[in-house]
Amino acid sequence: MDIKQNTMHFDTEIMSLGHAKIPTPVRYSRFVDESQPQTLIMTSEELTELDHETCIMEFEKAGPREKLYFDPSKTKCAIVTCGGLCPGINDVIRAIVIEAHYNYGIRTVLGIRNGLRGFIPEYGYDVMELTPQSVTNIHHFGGTILGSSRGVQDPVAIVDSLERLNVNILFTIGGDGTMRAAKKIVEEIDRRKRKIAVIGVPKTIDNDINFITRTFGFDTAVEKATEAIQCAHVEATGVDMGIGLVKLMGREAGFIAAQATLALQEVNFLLVPEQPFSLEGENGLLKAMERRLHERRHALIVCAEGAGQDLMADKTERDESGNPKLGDICGLLIERIGRHFSKKHIETTLKFIDPSYIIRSVPANAGDRVYCGFLGQQAVHAAMSGKTGMVVSHLKSSMVHLPLDLVTLKRRSLNTKSDYWNTVMESTGQKSYFFPIDAR
Amino acid sequence: MDIKQNTMHFDTEIMSLGHAKIPTPVRYSRFVDESQPQTLIMTSEELTELDHETCIMEFEKAGPREKLYFDPSKTKCAIVTCGGLCPGINDVIRAIVIEAHYNYGIRTVLGIRNGLRGFIPEYGYDVMELTPQSVTNIHHFGGTILGSSRGVQDPVAIVDSLERLNVNILFTIGGDGTMRAAKKIVEEIDRRKRKIAVIGVPKTIDNDINFITRTFGFDTAVEKATEAIQCAHVEATGVDMGIGLVKLMGREAGFIAAQATLALQEVNFLLVPEQPFSLEGENGLLKAMERRLHERRHALIVCAEGAGQDLMADKTERDESGNPKLGDICGLLIERIGRHFSKKHIETTLKFIDPSYIIRSVPANAGDRVYCGFLGQQAVHAAMSGKTGMVVSHLKSSMVHLPLDLVTLKRRSLNTKSDYWNTVMESTGQKSYFFPIDAR
Amino acid sequence: MDIKQNTMHFDTEIMSLGHAKIPTPVRYSRFVDESQPQTLIMTSEELTELDHETCIMEFEKAGPREKLYFDPSKTKCAIVTCGGLCPGINDVIRAIVIEAHYNYGIRTVLGIRNGLRGFIPEYGYDVMELTPQSVTNIHHFGGTILGSSRGVQDPVAIVDSLERLNVNILFTIGGDGTMRAAKKIVEEIDRRKRKIAVIGVPKTIDNDINFITRTFGFDTAVEKATEAIQCAHVEATGVDMGIGLVKLMGREAGFIAAQATLALQEVNFLLVPEQPFSLEGENGLLKAMERRLHERRHALIVCAEGAGQDLMADKTERDESGNPKLGDICGLLIERIGRHFSKKHIETTLKFIDPSYIIRSVPANAGDRVYCGFLGQQAVHAAMSGKTGMVVSHLKSSMVHLPLDLVTLKRRSLNTKSDYWNTVMESTGQKSYFFPIDAR
Amino acid sequence: MDIKQNTMHFDTEIMSLGHAKIPTPVRYSRFVDESQPQTLIMTSEELTELDHETCIMEFEKAGPREKLYFDPSKTKCAIVTCGGLCPGINDVIRAIVIEAHYNYGIRTVLGIRNGLRGFIPEYGYDVMELTPQSVTNIHHFGGTILGSSRGVQDPVAIVDSLERLNVNILFTIGGDGTMRAAKKIVEEIDRRKRKIAVIGVPKTIDNDINFITRTFGFDTAVEKATEAIQCAHVEATGVDMGIGLVKLMGREAGFIAAQATLALQEVNFLLVPEQPFSLEGENGLLKAMERRLHERRHALIVCAEGAGQDLMADKTERDESGNPKLGDICGLLIERIGRHFSKKHIETTLKFIDPSYIIRSVPANAGDRVYCGFLGQQAVHAAMSGKTGMVVSHLKSSMVHLPLDLVTLKRRSLNTKSDYWNTVMESTGQKSYFFPIDAR
Repeated sequence: MDIKQNTMHFDTEIMSLGHAKIPTPVRYSRFVDESQPQTLIMTSEELTELDHETCIMEFEKAGPREKLYFDPSKTKCAIVTCGGLCPGINDVIRAIVIEAHYNYGIRTVLGIRNGLRGFIPEYGYDVMELTPQSVTNIHHFGGTILGSSRGVQDPVAIVDSLERLNVNILFTIGGDGTMRAAKKIVEEIDRRKRKIAVIGVPKTIDNDINFITRTFGFDTAVEKATEAIQCAHVEATGVDMGIGLVKLMGREAGFIAAQATLALQEVNFLLVPEQPFSLEGENGLLKAMERRLHERRHALIVCAEGAGQDLMADKTERDESGNPKLGDICGLLIERIGRHFSKKHIETTLKFIDPSYIIRSVPANAGDRVYCGFLGQQAVHAAMSGKTGMVVSHLKSSMVHLPLDLVTLKRRSLNTKSDYWNTVMESTGQKSYFFPIDAR
Repeated sequence: MDIKQNTMHFDTEIMSLGHAKIPTPVRYSRFVDESQPQTLIMTSEELTELDHETCIMEFEKAGPREKLYFDPSKTKCAIVTCGGLCPGINDVIRAIVIEAHYNYGIRTVLGIRNGLRGFIPEYGYDVMELTPQSVTNIHHFGGTILGSSRGVQDPVAIVDSLERLNVNILFTIGGDGTMRAAKKIVEEIDRRKRKIAVIGVPKTIDNDINFITRTFGFDTAVEKATEAIQCAHVEATGVDMGIGLVKLMGREAGFIAAQATLALQEVNFLLVPEQPFSLEGENGLLKAMERRLHERRHALIVCAEGAGQDLMADKTERDESGNPKLGDICGLLIERIGRHFSKKHIETTLKFIDPSYIIRSVPANAGDRVYCGFLGQQAVHAAMSGKTGMVVSHLKSSMVHLPLDLVTLKRRSLNTKSDYWNTVMESTGQKSYFFPIDAR
Repeated sequence: MDIKQNTMHFDTEIMSLGHAKIPTPVRYSRFVDESQPQTLIMTSEELTELDHETCIMEFEKAGPREKLYFDPSKTKCAIVTCGGLCPGINDVIRAIVIEAHYNYGIRTVLGIRNGLRGFIPEYGYDVMELTPQSVTNIHHFGGTILGSSRGVQDPVAIVDSLERLNVNILFTIGGDGTMRAAKKIVEEIDRRKRKIAVIGVPKTIDNDINFITRTFGFDTAVEKATEAIQCAHVEATGVDMGIGLVKLMGREAGFIAAQATLALQEVNFLLVPEQPFSLEGENGLLKAMERRLHERRHALIVCAEGAGQDLMADKTERDESGNPKLGDICGLLIERIGRHFSKKHIETTLKFIDPSYIIRSVPANAGDRVYCGFLGQQAVHAAMSGKTGMVVSHLKSSMVHLPLDLVTLKRRSLNTKSDYWNTVMESTGQKSYFFPIDAR
Repeated sequence: MDIKQNTMHFDTEIMSLGHAKIPTPVRYSRFVDESQPQTLIMTSEELTELDHETCIMEFEKAGPREKLYFDPSKTKCAIVTCGGLCPGINDVIRAIVIEAHYNYGIRTVLGIRNGLRGFIPEYGYDVMELTPQSVTNIHHFGGTILGSSRGVQDPVAIVDSLERLNVNILFTIGGDGTMRAAKKIVEEIDRRKRKIAVIGVPKTIDNDINFITRTFGFDTAVEKATEAIQCAHVEATGVDMGIGLVKLMGREAGFIAAQATLALQEVNFLLVPEQPFSLEGENGLLKAMERRLHERRHALIVCAEGAGQDLMADKTERDESGNPKLGDICGLLIERIGRHFSKKHIETTLKFIDPSYIIRSVPANAGDRVYCGFLGQQAVHAAMSGKTGMVVSHLKSSMVHLPLDLVTLKRRSLNTKSDYWNTVMESTGQKSYFFPIDAR
């Protein structure tokens, strides 16, 4: 057997607060042997920067350790949830509390209110005491019982707050911005030579965190996105020359849009950030839509919010308005589609659906609930053994530890040369509309 | 027992094409005795123009007649669906086809494509043949398999088309505009002394057709609206000072918004067309929201699309743009709320959900399915007995015939003096925010 | 106008504890004028004992009264939930607590645990204090947060308990057994000349309480029943000669089974308690199924649990086992169908689904939530004005008070001579299989 | 890097009908390079027979090949669905038809009716012609449009039929029995030296096919199972000393039961085939339940249908009835629990839910739909390149080809020494009830 190890190198080593020597209070069926790494073969589709190469990597396995760094009876934990909502946050909170309480006998888990702001005295937010009883039913609800906020806060003030609260372990549930903030908190803790572990649980509804092939809540989001697209399909077919347009999450990566497109099998045009397209010209979207409408008399478009930003840049330059925010691609599409067909005296009816908040605020489905449960448990295992500066994640059917540096290195995006993307394109048939010469 | 009959008079007499004398092919368990009207006591809440009076009225009962006007073996039916989508249209189509085919032995039911346009040769739409087999599964899907269109068409051209197609019975599924169009078709048929029955099945997701206390699809729409509002609630409570804003259908009547508000029991401000409100001032919405946010740190607003149009009229006059379309009240709210709180240096986060097409394009729920089934059946019974110029409807647990004139007389709206509305207001508690002196 | 009042007499007068003279603390938009009864025209389908006659009846309107009998600041309420589960119980509990607390300013609402047993010291159950906060989310869950139990308890012990707890108002949520128990509690209170109001909220998933045309939870139950039947349909059509058999609730009345049959439009044989049938013989079920299977190669049977009990009586006599419990009709069907077809060497595959606990333990849908909210509110209004020995209910789009005697007089059942039933039979087409001469 | 290759050997080589040399009609974004195997590291949890070892294996990658064995314009495909229902079968059928038609230009895909029986002339079943149009909506429905049957048929007769129908490619969707039957069909084809490819798509709701870590429909089944268990939880907590008992699929493996237990986080006792348990004795289930009920006054049991078969074997021996069918473990539990608590004069209320047909007959959820789409596509790719005697499957985020021999070697089951199982046990807390000394 001949496995060439790719020369590309990623540092997967995990930081530790020190030597673990306290026995774990519960006899697990088996403990992780740290001398045995989890060896995984990552493919080019998973590591989107590679091209047709696989790469063997070793990761630290997640799971309970025989020896602990923290004495459970003296350990105080805190949980903070940051950024936008995503199905399953409450499940992760619940799992951390249950694991800490029942399997380690930790007495105190604090909930920091409203994201990183909850650490900053100026905001005046109380902390919540989280007990098995107070979290028992929270997984039946979407959102986060702790509240959230966007943006960063001063790491010095955060560590001050952790010290005041006598917190030994901080669990941060958030996206890559939060993971970068966590990194700075770790550095500040290190500077002060404090023994506070910081463990991240990666959250992003866009599914675009580096190295993390499935973030929690993604399956649920796809399920709801599929329902919304089905509604747009019903609207588009409910009139002659009907056009359904659905805007989905995906600032830099079209994962939800692509997966929902595969699930429904009714989408005709899928627009994602990874795949530029033009509006005008023989191979432009408008002409392609015209062909589609002419042939089938209805069309269904799914557009990730970050798609076609170059088209907006043009527009921006033309309008001399330097808007740093994401351009409103769906607004542009509505306007240009309207103009195109009215100029051609083709009467069309466009129905636009923007389901974003409906997608991200629902409770997690069964699969995501199970995943969130594992993430919460493994986060507690990692923290109690003295790990810090890392996240827990599922990677190719294994639960592993990943350094914060690795997951914040860059963002994942769809590999448009992959078989997956090819299948997505086949399911839409959009190539044949864009490039009629290659028509099916 | 003393029942005073209100002096108000409504003409409930139904037009007939002539004397029915052909025996019904199926032995129903019982036939409707036309000499016995359905006597109903309508209350002021149901007849929104009345004030604290009840009114005894006689209606023609729906149901199978012993004698038919049309000979089933020679009868040809047509179905047309008009206006916006609504859950249950396919159920009504299916019920008409099944009833006509199995219980009357009618051989041909045509589906007119894309609304009234389907009658106009210029559009070039084919008709569809509808058979029990072709409609067997359509109730599992939202929308209309026939397609729809908005707007009226020339009744002369429509009747020309009916004659060309040899149609004896036309079923029109649509809103009050469609019912007015149906009335003109009836008049044109009458002018030509043709024997074509026109039977309406009233459809409006706003539930605002006069005399019709529950239109099909309404329950389903409320169910989906409730889900959307719950998402906005999760978003509003997911951040500090979060505001959830949900736009619901309701151009002139806030029925869906009010019912969904009652179902969820989390809405703080409900804005409907029937209840004017001001934005500014001590008793204005903005000040009321400020109180609410100050007290509870989140707020949930549900707004029917036709609410606060007077606020827009002002704006319109200011902008000198005579827009006949509904003003964008939610756009206005977003702007004014943003400005109000930013001026006061209160940081708020507003999440806006517009679920309309998601609400109206889903399949009907079980209750609506049953209702649609009855509507379709009764429409066939009415037509076969020679009735015309009427609609079938549920009225106070009875199925009755209502003249087209009656249902197009005016639109229904919420009676804001009713106990129902009072209960809605209690569930929001918004009075106490609008008028803090009466605070709970 | 000529309305003949039916001579049948029902006593609809409501008992009162005494003269109400305390002003209502909240200004409702309008108060109920007790001198104006709610006049309703009940039809024979609604009053199942009548035959083709309508009956004008006067009921006491539900709603807030201007004067109260109880002083809110000194009033203590208790809620008890009895019998089997039903969607919406928690909604009623929540509505009572919210109404009592916010609109009347009542400080204490007690939850009695585990049904009427909660009153009996021997069981040793604590009472729960119910506050707006403790009930705020309970409507998202099925079941009852109070627990329930079946069977009656000694009214003397119950009233002893009410006195010990200083309860002024008891709300009993339960079926007709519970309403009979409530009647005895009222009598015992009366005997002691105590001023304790007892208000019932009728609950029965079978929808068979006399005079109450729609009990809460019924719509939700039908929705879930429809899903289960759809599954049986998929199973039946998934093999050649497949038979799907679904058992639904309905000990003496087949309302859920009939309504779900109408909603799905796929059922071939509907068996309910109200409609006897035979298994053997030319017009028996087995022969009818044989015809159906021969013709279409699959069959779908829905059976209410109380159907065909006479067939079991026979069996019982034969087996000399005097079982007072409902015979297992589905067990009998499975055995006899199996024997019939194996004797004829016809290979069939029967799939049996018994979804009962899945139907009754889910949260209420939007429509039922609204209804439960009204029931809870109206129950508080009635109690506070000094009414007792009554239930609140929806009757023909009005909310009314009904005496306990009236609702426990007898049980409602499907009128098999009604148009409703006729439509149900048409949708199954089962007559044509039972009586092949009349075949469609 | 040091990866020890486990000495265990599995033959992963795929049979081929011959040399592929026809160019693929569609330009895929990339074709599979057969010289590059998919190297995967299988862990002991995945290969349940191993103990703490990993194993590097090479598999043939799934995907489109540059050269085809069959000429699309002359190729005729057939699809057969066998065994019990499972969510997603129609999705697989649809994907095969769409891929064959649009991407390869294959003109004929036949649907064999009612499983392998469809090949046997005695049954007289017609074949169905499957076109893109006839399958366009089938994924919205559960079950299989082709019908299914259980049991094997003579491979000689099957190959006779394939020859008569001029079928070049047979797709068999079924469980391990079907895969064994497929193996025999391949052998018979080989004996006759015919060029007919046989490609399997593994289907098992129990998720117990060897080497296949996730079969399609599993996620959907878990979702529905979770709903049923939630209902049992509501029932159990709805009375004092309530016991909820849910029977789930799982003849030899408790995957669905375990995953749903993790998803709901409310189950107290999980019984699966892989983990024997005793009823009586200090560490038996009955005593454990007694402790649980004493402590929490309700208990929730989930039982896979194949659990506790040794308890039944005992019973069988005692009764001298050699029943080859699975013993009715839930029947036994109901009887023994009843007897146990009544002997101890503890009044309990047990509610039993058997949701099996409701779980397996629903449409697939979004995640399963995507998976089924890939399976169908890859099956066509494999067949067209001349592969045979193999199945397509997802393995550790890659799509691969597996030889029929490998997947039928043995059945997968839960590894009760794994971390996964440990987490399941923690979530139930059942160890502490079974072994009170180790109590939490």
